[in-house]
Amino acid sequence: MRSTSRTEAVPASTPAASLVFTTVLSHGPLTRTEIARRTTLSSAAVTKAVRPLMEAGYLVEGVDEEARSSLGRPANPVRVDGGRALFIGVKVTGDEIIAVLTDLCCRIRVARHLPLTDREPGAVLAAIAGLVQELLTEADGFGVEVRGLGLAVSGDVDRTAGVVRYSPFLDWRDVPLADLAGTVTGLPVTVDNDVRALTVAEQWFGAGVGLSDFALVTVGAGIGCGLVVHGRVVSGAHGVAGEIGHLSIDPLGPPCHCGNTGCVEAIAGDSAIVRRVREVTGLPVADSGQALELAHQGDPGAKEAYARAGEAIGRAIGAVVNVLGPQRVIISGEGLAAYDLFAEQIRDAFAASAFGTAAQCDVMTRPLPFEEWARGAAATAIQSFIGTDTY
Amino acid sequence: MRSTSRTEAVPASTPAASLVFTTVLSHGPLTRTEIARRTTLSSAAVTKAVRPLMEAGYLVEGVDEEARSSLGRPANPVRVDGGRALFIGVKVTGDEIIAVLTDLCCRIRVARHLPLTDREPGAVLAAIAGLVQELLTEADGFGVEVRGLGLAVSGDVDRTAGVVRYSPFLDWRDVPLADLAGTVTGLPVTVDNDVRALTVAEQWFGAGVGLSDFALVTVGAGIGCGLVVHGRVVSGAHGVAGEIGHLSIDPLGPPCHCGNTGCVEAIAGDSAIVRRVREVTGLPVADSGQALELAHQGDPGAKEAYARAGEAIGRAIGAVVNVLGPQRVIISGEGLAAYDLFAEQIRDAFAASAFGTAAQCDVMTRPLPFEEWARGAAATAIQSFIGTDTY
Ligand SMILES: [Zn+2]
Ligand SMILES: [Zn+2]
Repeated sequence: MRSTSRTEAVPASTPAASLVFTTVLSHGPLTRTEIARRTTLSSAAVTKAVRPLMEAGYLVEGVDEEARSSLGRPANPVRVDGGRALFIGVKVTGDEIIAVLTDLCCRIRVARHLPLTDREPGAVLAAIAGLVQELLTEADGFGVEVRGLGLAVSGDVDRTAGVVRYSPFLDWRDVPLADLAGTVTGLPVTVDNDVRALTVAEQWFGAGVGLSDFALVTVGAGIGCGLVVHGRVVSGAHGVAGEIGHLSIDPLGPPCHCGNTGCVEAIAGDSAIVRRVREVTGLPVADSGQALELAHQGDPGAKEAYARAGEAIGRAIGAVVNVLGPQRVIISGEGLAAYDLFAEQIRDAFAASAFGTAAQCDVMTRPLPFEEWARGAAATAIQSFIGTDTY
Repeated sequence: MRSTSRTEAVPASTPAASLVFTTVLSHGPLTRTEIARRTTLSSAAVTKAVRPLMEAGYLVEGVDEEARSSLGRPANPVRVDGGRALFIGVKVTGDEIIAVLTDLCCRIRVARHLPLTDREPGAVLAAIAGLVQELLTEADGFGVEVRGLGLAVSGDVDRTAGVVRYSPFLDWRDVPLADLAGTVTGLPVTVDNDVRALTVAEQWFGAGVGLSDFALVTVGAGIGCGLVVHGRVVSGAHGVAGEIGHLSIDPLGPPCHCGNTGCVEAIAGDSAIVRRVREVTGLPVADSGQALELAHQGDPGAKEAYARAGEAIGRAIGAVVNVLGPQRVIISGEGLAAYDLFAEQIRDAFAASAFGTAAQCDVMTRPLPFEEWARGAAATAIQSFIGTDTY
């Protein structure tokens, strides 16, 4: 995290405190005993971690007479006080910016959308600044300070440095987004890859709660993958991880913008599907909306393009499952709009490529609107605030 | 771990104690301050974890006058007392059993090899029992007890249950090896996949020391991969992980014994190379030794088979690096004997498939004889003894 201003010290800088905070956030009110069991920390460590978080007001004790044990000792559950701080999360897509104002529990209070017409860093930054200003004004009504801003961008993002190293969809290279956004908004800024940010949201509040190992596969303009292994999001030693879009699955496949051939994204990404539909049908299909319409009308060429995409996605999921053996794979992304067109191919290709018991992995779909991605960005800001990004 | 006899309680059953033990084992004598820094545990937690390990005699304090701080406070480094316990590690290959006797520092004291003529579970068990008996006799000379037996077998192994679920090279299905070996040897037995066991040895003593994220790729009869992510070996929710041998990289590739086509192992495994050399040269090549000889003599057909294998291995490494972004990839296995024949293809295919900065990953080769695999099996027994498998 890069911070440009800070009005108060962050209370939880130890790994144990961060772990306790996240556990309580994900599982709701928990007694200290339950926290100890879920985190595998000792009771003493839990007590020590809870204290400063309670003193700062981020955790509060619920009064629950029934939870008191028969021995008369208090067993009051602890919960996050959502109203204690606000955060802003922003997801930047190729043609839209989505911003949300959340509380400390990462519950969305306000959401805003803004079309993006110019993808130059300066223009995007101005648009972000405008949205943040609007949300800061909204925040005034809550009487609580906004403590952090999370920005989620697709591509190769160095969270520690706060730099977007390469974003193909925005055509950005080495943009120091955290510093720039910090300067224009005055907020502590966290920049992360959008799929990783969404993975944090799924881990905290979504289909990943309680799982130590899962994969979130996103289909749409790009094919991405967020990974949680041993309870933590995988970032990659050099910032690259979960790049299943660039697994090459066919030496004779189409060329990919990464320079390789037969990449999953070169077969199953939105523009690859549109290109294929054009080739097969000979029709001047303009975008994925039209391609989808054509396939839904039953055009065999268009349907074949989606079937081919589904097979590539299924093989990519099979690769992730063979390499990591997660408990669950969650498929999401705007590409789910075409799910009826390739669900069967995804399932079959996954079953064919999963090795042995790896096929037992639970593969599920979950539509997540762009607000949820922006919420993931807010979750990364909460992580930075509470110190969980270092755990 | 399944235990059939135990003469003494295991001292370190907390995650912190296991972590401390492994850290001291890997990094040699460390002061408590250094242990705290490397484990990110608090000083109090380190002190608490060290005490029972020292009381049991597994950790000892070195006397080092120079290490005392200028304030006069002791800064005695702590180290593992290797002589305090002995372990046996056994690696079972398709045609040989290798057994080693190690101390608590996992240093090999005695190594034994036995050809394997019959792969039936009963025959293998009898051979293991004979080797273990020999090593127990050797152990008598050290005056220390053998505290555990580790068995490493290729294939799908359920360590928790102690069952070899499926081992293609041995043609075993659902063999309760830990129970059987425990009954015949009277020792606590740990059974694990052989590549995972070797990965533990690399993490503790090899090219993985000090790395939180690395991959060990083994080439030979099979193509395997052991993974360490966030400092811990990946086991897979259903027991399958690191199965890069069954990544399908070519829909038109050769059929694989797993039922899929174009798997890495179906192109780069020993028997696949032999088959390919036979096809291309028309010569009655009997085994990989002859195939290797032919290629080393400069036969273009044989050389092409190895080049093709190298390309498949390089693409598999690229897939692992794109998905996980490890700090290092270590290539090992008996297939390294052919390394000069495919090193260039591995390098080129890896470079072509690695996405963006993932290509910065350090890819290295490291010849590891089968004794090292058996040592890995002993390391899993030490893990079970000290409780690190649950961390
Ligand atoms: Zn690509
Ligand atoms: Zn296969």
